Amino acid sequence: MATSRFFNMPPFASTRNKSKVSLQRVDITSNAIQKTVRFSVINCSLKINHAQPALNDEIRVPSVIKEMENEEITSPSVAGRLVKGGPVFQQNVSVRSFEIDSEYKMSTKAIMNYLQEASLNYAKKLGLTIDTRFGITPGMRKMDLVWVFRGMHIEVDRYPCWGEVVQILHWTCASGRTGVRFDWTINDINTGETLVRASCLAVMMNKNTRKTCKFPEEVKDEIKAYLREDVEPIVEAFKYSCPQIEAMDHIKTGLTPGWNDLDVNYHVNNAKYLDWILESTPDSIRDRHELWKMNFEYRKECLKDDVIQSLSRVVPSNEKNREIEVEHVLRLESGHQVLRARTVWRTNSHSCRGINSMKTIF
Amino acid sequence: MATSRFFNMPPFASTRNKSKVSLQRVDITSNAIQKTVRFSVINCSLKINHAQPALNDEIRVPSVIKEMENEEITSPSVAGRLVKGGPVFQQNVSVRSFEIDSEYKMSTKAIMNYLQEASLNYAKKLGLTIDTRFGITPGMRKMDLVWVFRGMHIEVDRYPCWGEVVQILHWTCASGRTGVRFDWTINDINTGETLVRASCLAVMMNKNTRKTCKFPEEVKDEIKAYLREDVEPIVEAFKYSCPQIEAMDHIKTGLTPGWNDLDVNYHVNNAKYLDWILESTPDSIRDRHELWKMNFEYRKECLKDDVIQSLSRVVPSNEKNREIEVEHVLRLESGHQVLRARTVWRTNSHSCRGINSMKTIF
Repeated sequence: MATSRFFNMPPFASTRNKSKVSLQRVDITSNAIQKTVRFSVINCSLKINHAQPALNDEIRVPSVIKEMENEEITSPSVAGRLVKGGPVFQQNVSVRSFEIDSEYKMSTKAIMNYLQEASLNYAKKLGLTIDTRFGITPGMRKMDLVWVFRGMHIEVDRYPCWGEVVQILHWTCASGRTGVRFDWTINDINTGETLVRASCLAVMMNKNTRKTCKFPEEVKDEIKAYLREDVEPIVEAFKYSCPQIEAMDHIKTGLTPGWNDLDVNYHVNNAKYLDWILESTPDSIRDRHELWKMNFEYRKECLKDDVIQSLSRVVPSNEKNREIEVEHVLRLESGHQVLRARTVWRTNSHSCRGINSMKTIF
Repeated sequence: MATSRFFNMPPFASTRNKSKVSLQRVDITSNAIQKTVRFSVINCSLKINHAQPALNDEIRVPSVIKEMENEEITSPSVAGRLVKGGPVFQQNVSVRSFEIDSEYKMSTKAIMNYLQEASLNYAKKLGLTIDTRFGITPGMRKMDLVWVFRGMHIEVDRYPCWGEVVQILHWTCASGRTGVRFDWTINDINTGETLVRASCLAVMMNKNTRKTCKFPEEVKDEIKAYLREDVEPIVEAFKYSCPQIEAMDHIKTGLTPGWNDLDVNYHVNNAKYLDWILESTPDSIRDRHELWKMNFEYRKECLKDDVIQSLSRVVPSNEKNREIEVEHVLRLESGHQVLRARTVWRTNSHSCRGINSMKTIF
């Protein structure tokens, strides 16, 4: 298992801003916790926090850029800001009372919503898109292309509490000839600790034929200044075999989307799939554990009138292991699969209930 | 129909701050639009906007306090701020991409979520509550009392757009011997125009017997400094007769709450009821109209395993009238009613789709 990692932003050429951001490899093999190193990188003063050893001996990626100075804000009317002219987008958000679970912690669904929010605001901020909701560039509109998510991987080290202000960092990378990868971290605004890492592969689909296609050169030209090359995903999908549907013994049928679950094209929002996964997750797991790692493999779009079956199976494992793996499939009544997913659960690591109460007791 | 209204904050005695806020009656019988009058009220400089005549000749309440100076911020860790030590709570929020409908306008459900958010932050900010999620005071906890909503009335003049920052103002009033009334306005941050007015009656319920009870003196003593007296509701419930269930001809059955629809006590959040109302609202109304006025009468709590039937009926009216009234009932399969509601719909007044696109076209 990896004991050190590095976050390397390659030299970045923007048509708007020629400055470079290049963070050096940071050695994090020591056990230093929140030791702060301050150094300058070409006109940009950044505070980098050494990573804190995470659960299961994994090391958190030292990607936290806690203080960013001299950043360019191109359009104050759009939430968030561009860091150094474009390679990274930053948005701070506050966790709302309606976005928390029974332990007063931000729900995973809310986290997924904010990842989307950061991506759309990044596109708005860059002024690259003609349709702000879906990141549609003029070239994409001409060719009737839309973005579709293929896979999403999320790893949560700590869930933020109600009222906590967190910092979302977001950047995009080219991914082969067909796609774009979106990466995000959500960070503790005070300590710089990385709380959530997420990575998503998006490809282009012709909205008439509903088939995916290669990344057209015209579109690549439109956005290449903001696509990085050769940057590792902030979080990798964990490996697993094909789900054994015939062995899935936790089943919930008759699930339907509500009007508030649809996007502006009347497709079900990808965060809604998580609701349906939870419906067939055994109570004993959902009540006493929390979601730690998630892999989502999106296979088919879902519309308002679709009726969904949610199937789950706990993956047998060594009982000494406190992690629980569950495999999931969402499918239409016709049998067509909408989503395959694998989730890893751990014992509830903390509660925000006490934290919130303490603040307001007389 | 009323042609003028006034917003009168009575002399307010706070144990923390003895200053008074008392706004004088403002004559708004003229047609002045956004005419601004600036005057001082005992150490507090406020800018009051004259109301803009609203649809259907109703007059908007001139309650917008656009600029508030010298306000007291008791706890910077909690979102929002107390105006002049307590009588009004203010919180500014930005509309998110996942809170909008197909016209890029903030959904009514999102509005309801933010009303709750403001109430809970107000209680946190005042330091009155021992359980921050439900506004439970020490006296309430001792007597096993919780708040329950009885009725909610919302009127939307204009739905905010994605990315728009709006100002929520919120205050509370005593309501007879049994309850407390919550009032809110949501205002355009730039013009001061009131976009949304909402009023809600909450009563106390013993969580063991599930019966409502009078407002205990001990609890009243705890919060009386922040309860106003004799202030009119910011919006009145509109009158209507008992719903004719046997005539309801739009029915959707088998509706169930998801895990993300529950609050920390595993009750269905009141904003979820709106989802279910929409499920039985005729497509022709939902697609070409927008919700203008809503009355919700909460009759029974709803839990995770409940299965809901949603019933609706369009109220016959004079065809010249462009408003459409719909009556709704949500009930359990046993027949017990969970909610009665009446909604008024008007032709879609505007779209935010163009507004958002224009900002980001090359």
